[in-house]
Amino acid sequence: MKIRDVVLTPVAFADPPLLNVMGVHEPYALRSVVQLVCDDGVLGLGESYGDAAFLGEVRKVLPELAGQDVFDLPGLKRIVARTLAGTVLTDEHGLIGGFSIRKTIASVYSLFEVACLDAQGQALGRPVADLLGGKTRDAVEFSAYLFYKYGAHLGADEDSWGEVVTPEALVDEAKRMVGEYGFRSIKLKGGVFEPEQEIDGIRALAGAFPGHPLRIDPNAAWTPETSVRVAGELDGVLEYLEDPTPGIEGMAQVAQRANMPLATNMCVVNFGDIEPAFRARAIGVLLSDHHFWGGMRDTQALSVTCESFGVGLSMHSNSHLGISLAAMVHVAAATPHLSYACDTHWPWKTTDVIAPGALRFVDGAVPVPDKPGLGVELDQDALARAHEDYLRCGLTKRDDVTYMRKYRPGFEPNTARW
Amino acid sequence: MKIRDVVLTPVAFADPPLLNVMGVHEPYALRSVVQLVCDDGVLGLGESYGDAAFLGEVRKVLPELAGQDVFDLPGLKRIVARTLAGTVLTDEHGLIGGFSIRKTIASVYSLFEVACLDAQGQALGRPVADLLGGKTRDAVEFSAYLFYKYGAHLGADEDSWGEVVTPEALVDEAKRMVGEYGFRSIKLKGGVFEPEQEIDGIRALAGAFPGHPLRIDPNAAWTPETSVRVAGELDGVLEYLEDPTPGIEGMAQVAQRANMPLATNMCVVNFGDIEPAFRARAIGVLLSDHHFWGGMRDTQALSVTCESFGVGLSMHSNSHLGISLAAMVHVAAATPHLSYACDTHWPWKTTDVIAPGALRFVDGAVPVPDKPGLGVELDQDALARAHEDYLRCGLTKRDDVTYMRKYRPGFEPNTARW
Ligand SMILES: [Mg+2]
Ligand SMILES: [Mg+2]
Repeated sequence: MKIRDVVLTPVAFADPPLLNVMGVHEPYALRSVVQLVCDDGVLGLGESYGDAAFLGEVRKVLPELAGQDVFDLPGLKRIVARTLAGTVLTDEHGLIGGFSIRKTIASVYSLFEVACLDAQGQALGRPVADLLGGKTRDAVEFSAYLFYKYGAHLGADEDSWGEVVTPEALVDEAKRMVGEYGFRSIKLKGGVFEPEQEIDGIRALAGAFPGHPLRIDPNAAWTPETSVRVAGELDGVLEYLEDPTPGIEGMAQVAQRANMPLATNMCVVNFGDIEPAFRARAIGVLLSDHHFWGGMRDTQALSVTCESFGVGLSMHSNSHLGISLAAMVHVAAATPHLSYACDTHWPWKTTDVIAPGALRFVDGAVPVPDKPGLGVELDQDALARAHEDYLRCGLTKRDDVTYMRKYRPGFEPNTARW
Repeated sequence: MKIRDVVLTPVAFADPPLLNVMGVHEPYALRSVVQLVCDDGVLGLGESYGDAAFLGEVRKVLPELAGQDVFDLPGLKRIVARTLAGTVLTDEHGLIGGFSIRKTIASVYSLFEVACLDAQGQALGRPVADLLGGKTRDAVEFSAYLFYKYGAHLGADEDSWGEVVTPEALVDEAKRMVGEYGFRSIKLKGGVFEPEQEIDGIRALAGAFPGHPLRIDPNAAWTPETSVRVAGELDGVLEYLEDPTPGIEGMAQVAQRANMPLATNMCVVNFGDIEPAFRARAIGVLLSDHHFWGGMRDTQALSVTCESFGVGLSMHSNSHLGISLAAMVHVAAATPHLSYACDTHWPWKTTDVIAPGALRFVDGAVPVPDKPGLGVELDQDALARAHEDYLRCGLTKRDDVTYMRKYRPGFEPNTARW
């Protein structure tokens, strides 16, 4: 089945002022939506990053796709590799680790791979999970993704979540999120305040949610020494400690002395990082992400590599919409060695580009859509509105640092600060 | 699409007296053929080992399969794991490494996984390679698989290949095989004679086939010291040295001092072997085999693990028929990181159970069938004849050692003999 036309739409959607190691989320998060218009009226959907640099690379590939068979994924990969030859994209916001030609190709390829698999599934009348070997689970568990946050964007009214900077507010945020979605695992995005304050936050969560697995992800805000100290203080409290410190070497130092597994989506971000990290025993959990690990099939393969080395698997999330959630759910469903609940920013958004109803949370888990393909349908009106928001908001890249400086002049990222 | 009935047929086919470390091939090689009779008249085909122990395990699973959806491969795996709980199959002939519950489950599962994928492909109208992510190559390259051999089975007339025990006869064997099939890579099954004699054989092949990549596989007939010596003598002559010595530790010792990569299908035979072997840098090439690596999907995943650690990938073969060759071709076609020509025993057989025409060799490579599923069709008459041969020959397991003792009383396997 051939691709006849490709439509790429940058979109923006409202995002609360969530705090992290690099600063604070701007009022809008950016994404890209791709529609592969195929034979027989099939429309294959993909979603990924929305910053201008990524869109620029994706746009180079678009003219090469007409006539391409959606089943010929190796051909698609060759097209992407040839078209992007030599380009290295950075994420600019500094939250998903190293950059390389390989990761750039993997990221751009992934957008189209997902859309091709959606088209394949529709053409064949099977859910994408079936094309990936079948469901190992009927629903995919996600974690509550807590953030410290400001109460309002600059010049705007307070949002419904309000300010969250104290342990008490954190527990309230968690109660609302767990109450609405039924999450079991709870993750705190740290790297915002001094470690002691964040330790207090985790302890408050542990007290309020006994039996719920807890994680903290300071995005490498700590030195190895601090990381070891925090690991000691939270021993028995955390199911895993995510990216406490930068780099494979630093993580390996911490891993040697920490009792809980260390997780990462920063120091192991493509297949080239696997060997050095695994040889150094730097991590115990890998956070997969089909958006930059080269698509859904490579994410599955990654899980087998992890399993072979006794490394657990979880899933990383950036701010995303429903097409990405559907893709995350299908690949997670078809990945036996997924040993932890996946991350998602889902609760933080208020709009989407897909028609409602296809994706829902039941006890913290999303039942795998059983319709053909990804099982989600584009709401063209919502897409148009999200594109208008993109044009109106004027953002072309994520820049938490600069936005943070409007709140706190002179702010510098907290990477390895403590 | 549901499985309605399952037919398991043990078959035998004539096999020449090929020599190896364990002795000599008996007059018949055994295989099993499975037919999944599915809805809409779809017949999914699988092929694997034919020894009684394997058949016994497979037969345990058969009654569990009726009503099973061919798209639910995780469900199939659960059925196999539950049904075989605790059984450990050995290969008895001692040529494919360690044994474990895991490898047993992987082997039995593989037979059915292939048949399910064949059925899926037929139901969807797509070749199996498309269900595995698409072809990265249109044809799959194989190697000439040379054996030292006796001229005739006991009490039988000389076969068309005649006796092959000298370098000259080896070159003649190679000339015929390369002439008929167009192979580029040439593999010699060693472990039969003293290393010096086999080195002479390789040198004769190098002289007669300049530019053809060469391999030798003595099936662990040598000590580490001998292996290092042979590696030195054949430096610059071999593309890889396959299983010179037993075990990961021994292989690692040799690998440290050999200039060519070491390959294996003996010391790394399931995912549990990967970590110790890769940490020890014991091998440079893994010989995959979907029959015992858990099917076609796991074989693909294995390739990604190998690629991540800079380990090359080739493919192992046992005596097999056309269903297995088709499966090997589809999985190889859909595996980007397949860095060497695959092994096949194909030239050594004279009959098959599939209708002719679907598989052919062009310049040493098999074009990937583009029909739905595996693209091969069962010849029910040929299957019946092969089953009659199975019943008539009376063999129930492969036992090269005992048969060898009829030629050479007192023979003991050559494992680590030299
Ligand atoms: Mg993270
Ligand atoms: Mg071998």
